[in-house]
Order: sequence, then structure tokens, then C-alpha cells
Amino acid sequence: MKPAIVSTEGPLRQAVSAARRTGKQVGFVPTMGALHAGHVSLIEAARAANGFVVVSIFVNPTQFGPNEDFTRYPRPLERDLDLCVGVDLMFVPDVATMYPLGFQTVIQVKDLSDILEGASRPGHFEGVATVVLKLFNLVQPDRAYFGQKDAQQVRVIQQMVRDLNVPVEVVVCPTVREPDGLAFSSRNRYLDSDQRREATALNQALEEAEAMIREGERNAAVIERAMAEHIAATPGAVLEYGVAVDADSLKPVTPLKGTVLLALAVKFGATRLIDNRIVKC
Amino acid sequence: MKPAIVSTEGPLRQAVSAARRTGKQVGFVPTMGALHAGHVSLIEAARAANGFVVVSIFVNPTQFGPNEDFTRYPRPLERDLDLCVGVDLMFVPDVATMYPLGFQTVIQVKDLSDILEGASRPGHFEGVATVVLKLFNLVQPDRAYFGQKDAQQVRVIQQMVRDLNVPVEVVVCPTVREPDGLAFSSRNRYLDSDQRREATALNQALEEAEAMIREGERNAAVIERAMAEHIAATPGAVLEYGVAVDADSLKPVTPLKGTVLLALAVKFGATRLIDNRIVKC
Repeated sequence: MKPAIVSTEGPLRQAVSAARRTGKQVGFVPTMGALHAGHVSLIEAARAANGFVVVSIFVNPTQFGPNEDFTRYPRPLERDLDLCVGVDLMFVPDVATMYPLGFQTVIQVKDLSDILEGASRPGHFEGVATVVLKLFNLVQPDRAYFGQKDAQQVRVIQQMVRDLNVPVEVVVCPTVREPDGLAFSSRNRYLDSDQRREATALNQALEEAEAMIREGERNAAVIERAMAEHIAATPGAVLEYGVAVDADSLKPVTPLKGTVLLALAVKFGATRLIDNRIVKC
Repeated sequence: MKPAIVSTEGPLRQAVSAARRTGKQVGFVPTMGALHAGHVSLIEAARAANGFVVVSIFVNPTQFGPNEDFTRYPRPLERDLDLCVGVDLMFVPDVATMYPLGFQTVIQVKDLSDILEGASRPGHFEGVATVVLKLFNLVQPDRAYFGQKDAQQVRVIQQMVRDLNVPVEVVVCPTVREPDGLAFSSRNRYLDSDQRREATALNQALEEAEAMIREGERNAAVIERAMAEHIAATPGAVLEYGVAVDADSLKPVTPLKGTVLLALAVKFGATRLIDNRIVKC
């Protein structure tokens, strides 16, 4: 059975309130659609811990740069609905509902937003933080589910929730991978067959870097160089960044200690892929 | 009987949740303390419409400029508590509770924040919007009460609530005035006796401007000139701005039409006073 769909604030609030009145807790999975096994794992985690599960599908224009893939971002709504098994409510607003005339408010999570993905994609995390807070205020979930694949997004949202005292528990779920190790991403479908084959380089480079840390390497520069060399040796791959940083601040830490984020951004033609690993030193 | 006081998030959420479980609605009056008759009117409005009333007292450092009166802002806590008759809960956090180490998130209501007060006080409304959203998320009230005296603050908060889908009803209460017309303000106590006498000029200039509109004047420049001349003729008064603008956008509208905000900022020595009138054309 396909889930009920609402596209505006009033019916959304009514449906969630009705569920709350029956004593159910509310789990929320915000997405941009083009759902894959990673999203499905978030939905399953939400179902396991909450009596009522809301999934939103909204391709948020404000988190795309002017030269990014907003217009061609995939929007396979019917297929997405088929993947939302056991979801109680879909929230699928249009852009004018989320950003009505006169809209002018933005949220900045300052220190976390200008580095790594934020350096490559100016304004991206301002768009993410703002839309996620809007969705939190609309759905008012007990718990919200995000994938570790977008490690910096997770940190931005965790920090926003803490800084603004948002009454939501942020649950982070492990990255889901294809059999050959490539992290599921809605953008994988942009890859041609050669690129798809070579795209396993991200996971492999991260695996190597993780092994180096486990074997005692604590020099971030050495590990970053190894990741860069792995990507440089991959046909068609261009490294945007490959770093070993503090997993909380996302800033350099020398020598490496505590919990480290290994993060990669790699372009294959026009397609930009990211992946990461969390490693405890 | 003095109200119960909490200073941290856990006890605050517990007390509000307990009230909610008894079916009470929650009214919230955020203040910086130094309470006066204006605040008392907000508390009375909150009591009339809600079964449980929370008042916060927090002198928010982020809404003061570097050369403003944060350190000398009055903090008469005992007297404030005496004025909180019938309040169910006081939330009186310290700065480290509101802005813990690593805090980095800000809210910008862009178009409304850089003009008028925002031009005189850069960063002021970013500080206001951020702390008010934090307080909303902590208290989770059904209704929150603000005074019309801070007209631009009201617009910034209304816009933020709309843009971010915050589930709070913003209630705006009329400005409360001394018998001679001076709007109550925590900063009135900075005035010496001469300044206090001359400070009625704000209300008088606004009254004159309102009368001009009622008599048919629709040229904003003519009305603004009359207000400026009134202030210029007041001993010790220095005009910062005196405008007739659209009450929603706070931007010039020529000729005047719809709902107009007449707004004044005047300095007496180091003390800066504001006042305003809403007039329908």
C-alpha cells in the first residue's frame, strides 16, 4: 500500500497531530527523492523506533549552486513512493510552499559551513540548515534520520540542533554501499559505465587510509597524500579534496587523535561524488 | 507568591511538559528583565489566554553592539520577580547556558534586519532572531507575546516565524505609556530629569505625524521632515531616524498607502530611545 501524501502545511500538521494523539512517536526522514538503499535504511531505522514515520521529498533549490544540477536532479516520484514501504505519511511540498513570496530568513552554522563541501559549494549548508529546520518545525518529529555518507551535513545539522535547542533527536545511520563498495548516492546514476567502474576508488582510497591509521600512522599529510595518489591513479577521476580531520570540528588536527573523519570529494566528468570514514585513533 | 525559577534546559522542559500533560496551553513572554508596565501588560495578556505562563529573563549579549550598554544594562532580578505576579515559571539562564563553547549558529532575517534599527545597530536583529528562536525551541509555547514599541523587532520575529514554519502564535500588544506619553522602556532609567522631561518629544512628534496622515498628507518626505523638525526643536535631542514606511516591509512607499509605520529613534546623550505608531491610510 502506498503511503498517504500531503503537500501543504495544514494537512501535514493535522496528520502528525492525529498520530501524536494516539500516543505515537514520530520519526522523520527528510530526502530529496531519487531514493536508494541508503534512504531505505533510514526509513527502516525510523520504523523500528517510532510508531509514525514521515518521509519528505523536496529537491531544495537553495542548497544547489548556480552551476549545479538542480534542474536535472532526478525526480522519479512514482518509483520513490514504491520504495516508501511502511511509511505513514509523505510530505511532498512544492517550491512556492517552502519559499513563498517575501521569504528572507536563513540559518548559518558558521564554522562548519565554509570548509570542505562548503568551500566547493558556497551557500550549500546555509540552504541545507534552513530547509532542515523548516522541515523539523513542520513535522515536529521526535527523531530525524540522516545518512553518514553526508558526514558534513550531519555535523551541520547536529550543531544547528544543539545551538538552537531544537527538540529533535538526530539519528545518524551507516553509509549503505553497493557490493563493490561504492556508496549509494542519487548522483551515481549520472555515471557512465567506465565512470561507474572507477568510482569504487573513493571507497578503496578510504579503506587504505583507514588501514594506515589502524597501523599507527598519525600524520594527516601522509594519509591525505596516499588518498590523493589513489585518486590520481584512477582513470577519469579528479580529486576535489581528500582530508583527515577532526570528526567534530572538521578541522585539521596534528598529529591525528581522537575521532578522525576521512573525507573525499571526487569528480568524474561533471559528476561529483563524496564518501567518508570515521576512524577512532 | 513568587514564581518558580529554573535556569537550565532540563528543568525548563520538565516543568513545561508537566503543564502540557494537564492540558494547559503555554504562553511565553521573553524579556531582558528590568521589567516595566509594558512587560506587565504582556504577562497579563499571556495569563488571559493561556493556562501556563513562562517569562524568561536573559540579557542577550549577541544583540548588543560593542559600544552599547550590555554591561550596564539594568538587572534588578528581585524587583523583576515581584512584578511577575501570576507567572507560573521563570526561565533565567546564564550566558554559558545559552551560548556554550562552540556555539556558531545564527539566524538572519535578511531584508528586515539591515534598515532602521539594524542600520544603527549592525548585528542586532541577528542576535534577536537567534535568541528568540532558541527560547521558542526551549519553551515550545503556543503563544509568545511582544510589545509594539519594538516595531521592527516584531516584524523580524513575525517574518522568522513565518519563514521557518515555527509553530508559535506571535501576539503583539500595544505600547504602554507613562501619563505624559513617553513609552515605557527599560532604558528610560538612564535619563536625567531634563532628558526625561524632553523625552516626551518622541510621542508628540509621532502624534503630529499621525494627525498629518489622518488629515490627508500622503507625502512621506513631508511627514518625515515634520518629525525631524519637532525633534530638532527639542533641547538635548538628536534624531537618528524618523520615517514613514510600509508597516510590513519597513521600506519607503510613495505616496503613502495601506498600513504605515511611523518610527523614530532619538538620542539623549548616550541614551537611545525608540517609539512608533501604526497608521492606516
